[in-house]
Amino acid sequence: MLEWLDSSEGSGVKVSQVYDSVTTGLQAFYRTKLLPIERDHLFHQFYSPELTDADFASAPMVLLMGQYSTGKTTFIRHLLQRDYPGMRIGPEPTTDRFVCVLHGDSDSVTPGNALVVDHELPFTQLSHFGNAFLSRLEASRLSSPVLEGLTLIDTPGVLSGEKQRIKRGYEFEAVVKWFADRVDMILLFFDVSKLDISDEFRRVIQATKGNDHKICILLNKADNVTTQQLMRVYGALMWSLGKVLDTPEVARVYVGTFWDQPLKNEKLRELFEQEENDLYTKIAQLPRSASLRKVNDLIKRARLAKVHAMLLDYFYKRMPTFFGHAKEQERMIQDLPNIYQEIAVQKGIPLGDFPDPRMMQQILTPMDFSTFKPVDGEKLQALEALLAVDLPKLLQLIPEEQMRHGIGDAAIAQVV
Amino acid sequence: MLEWLDSSEGSGVKVSQVYDSVTTGLQAFYRTKLLPIERDHLFHQFYSPELTDADFASAPMVLLMGQYSTGKTTFIRHLLQRDYPGMRIGPEPTTDRFVCVLHGDSDSVTPGNALVVDHELPFTQLSHFGNAFLSRLEASRLSSPVLEGLTLIDTPGVLSGEKQRIKRGYEFEAVVKWFADRVDMILLFFDVSKLDISDEFRRVIQATKGNDHKICILLNKADNVTTQQLMRVYGALMWSLGKVLDTPEVARVYVGTFWDQPLKNEKLRELFEQEENDLYTKIAQLPRSASLRKVNDLIKRARLAKVHAMLLDYFYKRMPTFFGHAKEQERMIQDLPNIYQEIAVQKGIPLGDFPDPRMMQQILTPMDFSTFKPVDGEKLQALEALLAVDLPKLLQLIPEEQMRHGIGDAAIAQVV
Ligand SMILES: Nc1ncnc2c1ncn2[C@@H]1O[C@H](COP(=O)(O)OP(=O)(O)OP(=O)(O)O)[C@@H](O)[C@H]1O
Ligand SMILES: Nc1ncnc2c1ncn2[C@@H]1O[C@H](COP(=O)(O)OP(=O)(O)OP(=O)(O)O)[C@@H](O)[C@H]1O
Ligand SMILES: [Mg+2]
Ligand SMILES: [Mg+2]
Repeated sequence: MLEWLDSSEGSGVKVSQVYDSVTTGLQAFYRTKLLPIERDHLFHQFYSPELTDADFASAPMVLLMGQYSTGKTTFIRHLLQRDYPGMRIGPEPTTDRFVCVLHGDSDSVTPGNALVVDHELPFTQLSHFGNAFLSRLEASRLSSPVLEGLTLIDTPGVLSGEKQRIKRGYEFEAVVKWFADRVDMILLFFDVSKLDISDEFRRVIQATKGNDHKICILLNKADNVTTQQLMRVYGALMWSLGKVLDTPEVARVYVGTFWDQPLKNEKLRELFEQEENDLYTKIAQLPRSASLRKVNDLIKRARLAKVHAMLLDYFYKRMPTFFGHAKEQERMIQDLPNIYQEIAVQKGIPLGDFPDPRMMQQILTPMDFSTFKPVDGEKLQALEALLAVDLPKLLQLIPEEQMRHGIGDAAIAQVV
Repeated sequence: MLEWLDSSEGSGVKVSQVYDSVTTGLQAFYRTKLLPIERDHLFHQFYSPELTDADFASAPMVLLMGQYSTGKTTFIRHLLQRDYPGMRIGPEPTTDRFVCVLHGDSDSVTPGNALVVDHELPFTQLSHFGNAFLSRLEASRLSSPVLEGLTLIDTPGVLSGEKQRIKRGYEFEAVVKWFADRVDMILLFFDVSKLDISDEFRRVIQATKGNDHKICILLNKADNVTTQQLMRVYGALMWSLGKVLDTPEVARVYVGTFWDQPLKNEKLRELFEQEENDLYTKIAQLPRSASLRKVNDLIKRARLAKVHAMLLDYFYKRMPTFFGHAKEQERMIQDLPNIYQEIAVQKGIPLGDFPDPRMMQQILTPMDFSTFKPVDGEKLQALEALLAVDLPKLLQLIPEEQMRHGIGDAAIAQVV
């Protein structure tokens, strides 16, 4: 099981070295060149909170989701070849919280309230979800070579029918969305005996929207049925998934049985082994592709911050000196799509970089535009240098061989 | 291959006997109790042409469709265990016409123009599609035990990209729709190397709308790829089919290789054999379920004819004696949905029995309502007796054991 991990130590450059220097680079660039302009223009109020060093340093994360008893926790045990502290496995709904399974020198469990104040970890923002959620969050630490390059997020199974009505006391889908936006891979678990996609599960899947490319699907316990039944079940799964995910690209489904027990049905052993192997290879590549994704994410964020600064600068400069604030403000909010056009042409910014106008109109309405700041020329220059010089240089640190996995091309296409 | 046919001779009552008496019954009932009222109220102008004896007597039909070279014609040869007259098989687009493969004492080919004037066969309506189509239609007759209970319709493969632009000279989709409405089973062919659903093929599939329950899908040449590739291909097929067919019920896909050659890949022999067996069993049941479907179709038609007669009667009776015809007519066309409501309540007819109001509005607009006829009380009584007594009695002729296949329950639910 663990051999696959070694494959992450690639040819030539050590993955971890690259990883470290990219992390340090990103942290410094963010603090000096992006954060100042974000702060000037209330970026964190509009989009997402300030990033911490931990957000850049964190190991790639894998989120495991699915209906209850589909084998999520068992999969983690199989991957780690041991139990994690606080782990429970059983035929009834067992995992009742979000568990961040992390590397640690010794075994320990940290409750949610303590976890979100640890600035070494990228979970501080979770405090916004409130106490009801924090009592359903914990970190489980253990020593495992797998976890040196990877953090796993175990989650409570999605319930259906009767049970789903008994509310959880916190916004499950919002939490899922928070994780989905931040993790590097989302594993959706299905098992051959529990295929129907309940309404709650559908909403949960939809909460991952915008992160479809991270989704891998596991059809678990596949040896529990005959080949013909498996074909039916698998076909039905793809049939309905195609509708729920609603992307033309077909999601990759790994068919197999992801645990330590011997196969109940030997007929498809070869297939199951290949599928398991493919999945582990993909997971093993995560640490490599994570640096790339982080650079990519920062590029996206920097481009948005630039547009946002232009926009607030535009509003500020058009506010009348004495009277008619409210009216002019109102007019500009209405006229937002045209203002986008105007700025896009003037500054040569692609329209696709602009934020969703409806979302903006909502946030802008209660604000007072005369409190906005004009763009600081120096800060803008720093931001532009970041986009034109610094981040592309950082990308070059990542050896070509690693670029081939995943998002490399997309990231480059955006920089050029 | 042919053993499966014998299984259609069921326990107790001979299928063919039942079939014959149901056919004769339907023909007589239609002519004496439904046709008169249809004629009185222009039913054939509004919905569909007069039925001929052949429409009731025809053997159940199977329509084969798919992209070119997916193995439709090969499947027919495999099923019949011999070539049909005029048959061509090859790796390039070969079948260039619609071929009705029928039972005959000796081999012969009948061209389209001759075929559609043969009142013994249910193809007379096809003459409406014009000469360009008729030159692409033929009947192929041969002696085969399979064809005694079944007619197969081979079709030209759907082309994609460049080729599909070179027009066929007739409305392919309209022809497909005509067949889809009348056949008992639609076999959609895919092969593992030709999965993409081209725009034309998508339109063709959509032309079968309303007949989704007749669709069976074949994923052919499945032994040409490895098991893992097959899973990918099959998954991708279900993913996109789910979107094209857009029904919650998952279409049944038969995975295998439907020809006489030995398997190229033995690993899934058992699966392929089961799938083939399932498919042949289903085809073998067609002659049984065909009588049931025919009764069911006539019930549907009779209910529609009743509503239609009420509706035209309503229009007729509300036309002013001297002036204002055009205006009153116009008003009633606009008001159609409310008129449906009114008649539904007055006559105790379920709203679901009424025809699509937009379609009706279109057909009604150029008509002169004062030419309509009032309902003839005797004819209406005959129609009501048909629905309440005659057809349910006919249903009882069909032994219970046969009712279990397919549409039986639906038919009964509608009568009760
Ligand atoms: N590959 C497998 N084949 C057969 N049974 C399995 C497999 N994986 C797990 N199981 C069994 O399924 C049950 C549920 O497993 P587990 O608790 O890991 O699921 P879970 O998805 O974590 O559920 P929950 O959402 O309730 O936490 C257990 O009884 C476990 O032994
Ligand atoms: N099960 C099968 N496995 C592998 N090859 C097959 C199989 N069935 C048919 N073929 C081959 O595929 C090619 C196309 O077959 P065929 O002519 O029957 O297809 P078709 O769907 O009727 O095509 P068209 O739409 O052009 O009429 C032929 O070369 C045939 O030998
Ligand atoms: Mg669990
Ligand atoms: Mg052919």
